[in-house]
Amino acid sequence: MRVAVDAMGGDHAPAEIVKGVVAALDDLPAGDTIVLFGDRAQVEPLLTGNWQGKVELVHCGQTVGFDEHPVEALRHKRDSSILKMAVMASEGQVDAVISAGNTGAMVAACQMKMRLLAGVNRPGIAVVMPTFHGPVTICDVGANVQCKPINLYQYARMGSLYSQHVLGIERPRVGLLSIGEEDAKGNELVKQTRQMLKADSSLNFQGNVEGRDVVRGSVDVITCEGFVGNVVLKLTEGLADGLIKLVAKEFTQACPDLAPKFEPVVKSIWRRHDYNEYGGAPLLGVAGICIICHGSSNYRAIVNAIRVSREFAKNNVNDQIVRHLAEQPIVS
Amino acid sequence: MRVAVDAMGGDHAPAEIVKGVVAALDDLPAGDTIVLFGDRAQVEPLLTGNWQGKVELVHCGQTVGFDEHPVEALRHKRDSSILKMAVMASEGQVDAVISAGNTGAMVAACQMKMRLLAGVNRPGIAVVMPTFHGPVTICDVGANVQCKPINLYQYARMGSLYSQHVLGIERPRVGLLSIGEEDAKGNELVKQTRQMLKADSSLNFQGNVEGRDVVRGSVDVITCEGFVGNVVLKLTEGLADGLIKLVAKEFTQACPDLAPKFEPVVKSIWRRHDYNEYGGAPLLGVAGICIICHGSSNYRAIVNAIRVSREFAKNNVNDQIVRHLAEQPIVS
Repeated sequence: MRVAVDAMGGDHAPAEIVKGVVAALDDLPAGDTIVLFGDRAQVEPLLTGNWQGKVELVHCGQTVGFDEHPVEALRHKRDSSILKMAVMASEGQVDAVISAGNTGAMVAACQMKMRLLAGVNRPGIAVVMPTFHGPVTICDVGANVQCKPINLYQYARMGSLYSQHVLGIERPRVGLLSIGEEDAKGNELVKQTRQMLKADSSLNFQGNVEGRDVVRGSVDVITCEGFVGNVVLKLTEGLADGLIKLVAKEFTQACPDLAPKFEPVVKSIWRRHDYNEYGGAPLLGVAGICIICHGSSNYRAIVNAIRVSREFAKNNVNDQIVRHLAEQPIVS
Repeated sequence: MRVAVDAMGGDHAPAEIVKGVVAALDDLPAGDTIVLFGDRAQVEPLLTGNWQGKVELVHCGQTVGFDEHPVEALRHKRDSSILKMAVMASEGQVDAVISAGNTGAMVAACQMKMRLLAGVNRPGIAVVMPTFHGPVTICDVGANVQCKPINLYQYARMGSLYSQHVLGIERPRVGLLSIGEEDAKGNELVKQTRQMLKADSSLNFQGNVEGRDVVRGSVDVITCEGFVGNVVLKLTEGLADGLIKLVAKEFTQACPDLAPKFEPVVKSIWRRHDYNEYGGAPLLGVAGICIICHGSSNYRAIVNAIRVSREFAKNNVNDQIVRHLAEQPIVS
């Protein structure tokens, strides 16, 4: 397997990205290769250890910035790492693409160059979020901010297949994010999607779920519009970060002598809520493997994203999606 | 001031509601009255202590349930507490209405019967959320799930005035909830609203904010569509609840002998994140005072909601809204 990694994407690029690639080499299956895309002059000096024969470098003269308009940037930056990765994936020269850079540009590049799986109308980013009751897969968290019911329906289907085949959850419970559990509640998008989800007996659909259910273990998969999904993801990060720090700070102030005992407990909880441990989020629906990482990814996130891309391939997620969507075609 | 309280609304009605009213009597200014709306046979036996002359009872033969369609319910339940409160408010017989019952029915009843303030297109529910850096006012959290830019713009204006005049924040920093700080990010609604907010020099507009900013003290007021605002509110409740319990549980397991020292710290943090301490959320934009409480409100939430209704009246929030919207009229 040849895994493409964008060396130039993310707040800590290229240093943390390349560090992550080097760290991933220990577990790299024989015959696999990591293909790093980026500025050779910056990237090559960062490669350390026994990387020869395992890492290839594709020089890219341009980078898409975080604040650039995705489609505009791709139009003008033909030599950017994101565009070149997607092009090489479309030509079969790499089997997976990974970036912690401009999410919109990654989505646009993969959608344009790699195309979509048969039966899929729009791709969606599926984040696996750690909760008190196990992992919850949320799709979409930012690829599609103006959804139609068919999109939310397909996010539920694809999220459910991912949860089943990659996370090993046998019959994933699927929820539709809304503002009340009752049929009458929600906006028009939710009400129409609900009918489609209810009509599909292949799904273990549990009905509407509310914001609190995201972390309460009520469901294994949540489908929602990218706008609200992204707010959920970022709010969860901010709140978990803030609350854990607050408890730690106040307890340390109240009982300074007990800090050494308290610290390892907080650190263990913190690790379980750290997105770096979860690596990357697959862009479900594209005809290939695309893993999108958090902008502030450190090297561990990159190691984990490479692992996720392998699991995605090993479990034939895309074949499952195509087969299931073909079995239950829905006209939008 | 005559404050109407729905004795029949909420998970713990009527017991906790009436208990809250009785508890509020200690601080009731001389001459003020609480008017309880509900089933006399259930409510009267719950009144204890020295309530005579301070509490009036308006019998209502019907209640709107949580799962009922708001407009349908109001059409058929002419004798329901929610509808009767709104009617009496419109007639000037009560000065404020409070309910922990069906939120949609409260919004619809107040909008239909009490009407809107001059210049307001749609009302919005403003929740004051406790954060690590002080209170953040979020409007809307569920009154309006299909917003136009003019609605979000007015929520920003009204939320800012509420933050200033009730919470005492001098020049509240206003943020527009989106999925990226850059101009190009967000959906169409956000992009159009952003232009309106930028053009209004009377607002201390800080630009787009992301989910993590809700709790990071970046802004004092956040405007958003009711759908995403409601998800934010419920997710925050669920996550704060879950995380604090998790830290407490794991630390108690790791160091059982230290539990007595740890408990008061956790309880103090918990209290600061307990919505019951914040009482109720004003429905901004209606021509009157309407306070909407959490469905699971306990008696303390009711005491605080009564306090909020008094602060709303004392600070002439509605006069401020009418005056400011008249000064800067915007055609939708």
